[in-house]
Amino acid sequence: MVEHFADRLAALVEQRRSRVVLGLDPDPAALWPVALAGDPGAGDPAQRAADAVARHCAAAIDAAGEACVAVKLQLACFERLGAAGWRALAEVRASAADAGLLAIADGKRGDVPVTASAYAQALVGCTPTPFGPVAGLGADAITANPLLGRDSLDPLIDAAAATGAGVFLLVSTSNPGAADLQDLDAGGAALHERVAALADAAGAQQTGQCGLSMVGAVAGATRPERLARLRELMPRAIFLMPGVGAQGGDPAALGPAFAPHPAAGLITASRSIVGAGGEGHGDPAARAAAAAEDLRAVTWNL
Amino acid sequence: MVEHFADRLAALVEQRRSRVVLGLDPDPAALWPVALAGDPGAGDPAQRAADAVARHCAAAIDAAGEACVAVKLQLACFERLGAAGWRALAEVRASAADAGLLAIADGKRGDVPVTASAYAQALVGCTPTPFGPVAGLGADAITANPLLGRDSLDPLIDAAAATGAGVFLLVSTSNPGAADLQDLDAGGAALHERVAALADAAGAQQTGQCGLSMVGAVAGATRPERLARLRELMPRAIFLMPGVGAQGGDPAALGPAFAPHPAAGLITASRSIVGAGGEGHGDPAARAAAAAEDLRAVTWNL
Repeated sequence: MVEHFADRLAALVEQRRSRVVLGLDPDPAALWPVALAGDPGAGDPAQRAADAVARHCAAAIDAAGEACVAVKLQLACFERLGAAGWRALAEVRASAADAGLLAIADGKRGDVPVTASAYAQALVGCTPTPFGPVAGLGADAITANPLLGRDSLDPLIDAAAATGAGVFLLVSTSNPGAADLQDLDAGGAALHERVAALADAAGAQQTGQCGLSMVGAVAGATRPERLARLRELMPRAIFLMPGVGAQGGDPAALGPAFAPHPAAGLITASRSIVGAGGEGHGDPAARAAAAAEDLRAVTWNL
Repeated sequence: MVEHFADRLAALVEQRRSRVVLGLDPDPAALWPVALAGDPGAGDPAQRAADAVARHCAAAIDAAGEACVAVKLQLACFERLGAAGWRALAEVRASAADAGLLAIADGKRGDVPVTASAYAQALVGCTPTPFGPVAGLGADAITANPLLGRDSLDPLIDAAAATGAGVFLLVSTSNPGAADLQDLDAGGAALHERVAALADAAGAQQTGQCGLSMVGAVAGATRPERLARLRELMPRAIFLMPGVGAQGGDPAALGPAFAPHPAAGLITASRSIVGAGGEGHGDPAARAAAAAEDLRAVTWNL
């Protein structure tokens, strides 16, 4: 019997009194000194960079993980290092599990049904081959792009549900350009409200014992004024909220996200934890630990 | 001086009298016998499956490549084999180049600007690291999801333009569920028409000597009745058209795509070439070669 994603998350939120997600977007040009110190000094640049990225992420998890409930792994940052990067991604995913953290694979995938099934195998399932099954990343949750419609999401949602994982659909993203399409009027409601309705419908039959669904929504913290409306449209969805810190979102404005349940909102922070205080000002691990704990405390009491 | 994507494509289309793209969506459970025959009989399942996938794709390129101008690499099908799959992807990309084919990395990526830059490094650029630059996949073109708006696309477009690559934005996809959001009325025009306008604007300053832009559009062959209108909205865009063959699209209905230029439309076919005739009926390579040549001839004369 697989435990439901929302129930796993809810237990962790309660236990850690936290709804902070540690965003890991490792840039090989801005790694912590400890990650560089482990370099052997020779070898394939991609492999050395990927190993350094894995050390950097492990150190960030060590430093800040205790104040968090999950890590968000930015797949692009691993993909750019090719096969070595993909191996580092699996290592970081294991480091997160060792620290008791859920792992959200942030790849924003979205494709036609047959391809969506392949992404599901890559991220939450496994792939049958003539040589035996090949396990995927084993993510606890993924992000997905809904532009291709419901039939493109069902394979991801079904595969995630089968393994106790979650799917966060992009409803209202945190970048300024999001307005170009997401805020268009689509027959009396903004497009992001249409997507919210789609997310709610897709997740309605997928709730855990805590009442929350395994189909959640990405809702940028940069537009807090719309959270109440999104909550109305998606009463069961867990909101994954990027955009605090470096992107300017104010954690204090995120209250409506948490109305249905203490685990109904997750606040992701990347640069404002891992890069807290800027470069060259003391120990980045100590600064990351303090920044994560600050964010935990501020957002726990909303 | 980097040669423009559209000019590179136009020369190849003229030389090969073809606008067929060989879709490579390798399923480890449905590989050609020649791919399985090369298996060493022992070892890590992921590595064996990835090696078999690379042999399968190389054989498909050998068989059908001559009738085509490009391959379309379905990234999901490689990602599901992890690091070994990513290595196979790079090998297949090299096989395509050896056969004189352009490589379209079909990942449908789309993310906030800083992450879009990382995807650009992964697919068309390279990543600076303290150990030296790490080259990305080196794709000749990529597909991208426009839901996050113009600022999420510019890093991909700029990086592609700098290396003579192209970007195909998802305008009207080939799956039935596409209608859920893409066909919503968005202030007097369907959402896919809004995306078409965005694609046209993004590519207006990015045309080659042939007059076509390096910003193209994915326009499913399953909805040929809308191609004339999309062509009106995007007079300079190269249309990448999936959906013929297995998905039911009729090549004869695609005429409007080619109106501005012989290279203004590309027809992608995956299962209908690589799996032509079904399993267990003679040599798949001979059937693939015949199916690709048929499609080339039919679509060249439109």
